Amino acid sequence: MGKDEDTLEPFATMTLPEKEALYKTLREEYDRVCQRKLKLNMARGKPGKEQLDLVSGILTVLTDPEDCVSDGMDVRNYGELAGIPAAKQLFAEILGCKPEQCFIGGSASLQLMYDLIAKAMTHGLKNSPRPWSREAKLKWLCPAPGYDRHFGITGHFGMEMIPVPMTEEGPDLDVVEELVKDPAVKGIWCVPKYSNPQGIVYSEQTIRRLAALRPAAPDFALMWDNAYCVHEVFGEYLPFPDILSLCAEAGNPDMVYEFASTSKITFPGAGISVMACSEANQAYLQSLLKYQIISYDKVNQLRHVRFLRDKAHTIEVMKGHAEVLRPKFSCVLDTLAREIGPLGLADWEEPKGGYFVSVNTLPGLAKRTLALCKEAGVTMTAAGATFPYGKDPADSNIRIAPSYPSLDELRQAIEIFCLCLKLAALEQYAG
Amino acid sequence: MGKDEDTLEPFATMTLPEKEALYKTLREEYDRVCQRKLKLNMARGKPGKEQLDLVSGILTVLTDPEDCVSDGMDVRNYGELAGIPAAKQLFAEILGCKPEQCFIGGSASLQLMYDLIAKAMTHGLKNSPRPWSREAKLKWLCPAPGYDRHFGITGHFGMEMIPVPMTEEGPDLDVVEELVKDPAVKGIWCVPKYSNPQGIVYSEQTIRRLAALRPAAPDFALMWDNAYCVHEVFGEYLPFPDILSLCAEAGNPDMVYEFASTSKITFPGAGISVMACSEANQAYLQSLLKYQIISYDKVNQLRHVRFLRDKAHTIEVMKGHAEVLRPKFSCVLDTLAREIGPLGLADWEEPKGGYFVSVNTLPGLAKRTLALCKEAGVTMTAAGATFPYGKDPADSNIRIAPSYPSLDELRQAIEIFCLCLKLAALEQYAG
Repeated sequence: MGKDEDTLEPFATMTLPEKEALYKTLREEYDRVCQRKLKLNMARGKPGKEQLDLVSGILTVLTDPEDCVSDGMDVRNYGELAGIPAAKQLFAEILGCKPEQCFIGGSASLQLMYDLIAKAMTHGLKNSPRPWSREAKLKWLCPAPGYDRHFGITGHFGMEMIPVPMTEEGPDLDVVEELVKDPAVKGIWCVPKYSNPQGIVYSEQTIRRLAALRPAAPDFALMWDNAYCVHEVFGEYLPFPDILSLCAEAGNPDMVYEFASTSKITFPGAGISVMACSEANQAYLQSLLKYQIISYDKVNQLRHVRFLRDKAHTIEVMKGHAEVLRPKFSCVLDTLAREIGPLGLADWEEPKGGYFVSVNTLPGLAKRTLALCKEAGVTMTAAGATFPYGKDPADSNIRIAPSYPSLDELRQAIEIFCLCLKLAALEQYAG
Repeated sequence: MGKDEDTLEPFATMTLPEKEALYKTLREEYDRVCQRKLKLNMARGKPGKEQLDLVSGILTVLTDPEDCVSDGMDVRNYGELAGIPAAKQLFAEILGCKPEQCFIGGSASLQLMYDLIAKAMTHGLKNSPRPWSREAKLKWLCPAPGYDRHFGITGHFGMEMIPVPMTEEGPDLDVVEELVKDPAVKGIWCVPKYSNPQGIVYSEQTIRRLAALRPAAPDFALMWDNAYCVHEVFGEYLPFPDILSLCAEAGNPDMVYEFASTSKITFPGAGISVMACSEANQAYLQSLLKYQIISYDKVNQLRHVRFLRDKAHTIEVMKGHAEVLRPKFSCVLDTLAREIGPLGLADWEEPKGGYFVSVNTLPGLAKRTLALCKEAGVTMTAAGATFPYGKDPADSNIRIAPSYPSLDELRQAIEIFCLCLKLAALEQYAG
């Protein structure tokens, strides 16, 4: 596959018979692929086995009772709601905030985000006039394309989700600044560094404008999911501003809740996570959290502290992941450039980090492309998943997750994806 | 201390001068204790270091990547919302239910209980006509004395908590059966085996009557916190009925939610937990849980499976804990019998398992006794904590947690407690 297509003219300039001939050739190729009964998966941002093996030293950093003492505390026992001081210190250094602004969670920052919104619903946030469940109407800003699990949470709690266009610098702040004048708008989802799925790094100006927002809602929540804070794939670690300081400087100390985790640093199924926010927010939230938990797993917190040590060493560990991920990202980007680029059927970002490549096809091709992929044994994130309510108005955005398959499998999968995209385009535009 | 007191007459028969002389002697002894600036803690059901060391082999059951595969699944990676099959199997065997009725949580079953009620508030349970937050009034049955963290949850969500008297066989079912006729009554807290704090084992008749309740609320929740399911201190493992089967047999398959954890089997700060309920409830709840988490820590689940193996071996592990706990419980019970028994100032249960000794003083003595203890450097669970709203109507119940101090410390602490109780009684009854 792929030998002839790079000489193809863009579809727009082809005659109908040329298109029909091409469709026939590609369809035969596709039918052969289907007969191979492949099972390839580019659906989720799951690290591959090679990455997990890289960090499996974490299994043996604590082996004896004596290892389980940190700051004089036996981490095996009950207590310390907000997590062990050393884990707060580690995340604070990575994020650039203060240890006392950190609350340490379990294996999923998703749970910390969900719980924050759930508590806002049942009890309200620190500056809420009332629990959100008693508000007549709740709205939420969703930069799109974005992360499906974010939209899942706000959708689950019945909020009206308003898509906000993404620019090369992050969410369109002209739109955001206008929308937050509505007091029913209670928050916004942001993945500021290597955004999911586009891999966009918010510009400093965008970040400063977000920190200085003047929302009508006194309890507006800037949900800052810094999921990829040390997740470079190409190039050196990219320093990033501390959003907590910027919000405080702008007079919004309690507006922001920052999240991060080790899901893609150590083990996705057994990491630790953090919610960072102002000390006033911590005091308020911990007064609610104390009814829910005694503490998250402190032994695992200490394992992470011993294994990752500090920010510098965490960045070293991430270089190991990047070594594994780089050829996979290159494979996807090179194949797209070779197979799709000349045809003008789609464009895409070239991310420097994160876990995804985001492809925008010509309008109306995403669902059909992914249906063809599925039939050929290639599972991908569902079309539309990157938009609130799973509805991509242009039926165009497709999220590719290159991390989980082996390089060989990935090569097959992305070539099949390109084939399916061409078929979808020919089906639509040939007639 | 304690040499003369066992020859004392009950206070009731003493003359005023005799009481005054005794008060003077005891007060001098108390002042000497205060000068020692002790720091002793019998407040929480925390295992001691010796117990944690006993089970620290769990730190090294998984050391290599190859160890991290269970039922073909790499537990290090994302996925498997309800937990790994082997962990469900382990808890199902311990509780006597089916693996598919189990959802595996993190280090605290408290979090699973909180989350269930939180979800009932925001979304309702399976058979709820509407989310509980939209009900005009919510009431909850609280067998008392009971577990302060249970009452914490229902209090936190604004429910009206109704105390239910405890009998030797568990909650007074005549009272419960009457109260559940009120459709505003949405549930009941139960610790059926070695109840917190009294160590009462619910009788089979009580359990059957609970399983066969006919509550007016269609979404009434029997919260079955089987926290001490394998936690014998004296004697052999006591078999216990499977509440899920009993509820199903009585036509109430969806009424019950059972909780357990390894907090007092392995590490309190790093265990795993379970919520067991009908498969229909699991399907409903997992349709909500999927927005909150991807899965709880699966590596730790597998650690527990490898370390505890099965029910028989778990019971073996618990015998080790019992060895450590037995002299501590005996110390408390013997000292109470010697110091307080002859005076008629209090009575108490003699639990065969669990983590507590529950003392009922003569009315009006609990707060003062614990204030005296505090001044003498002995921290105990706050008076009233074992009742809803922290209000013990008789100011009588005191929970003693013997597990955390060393035997030497415990001996000092319980003797000081007895001294304080006598002083409190003399203060109140001498005049």
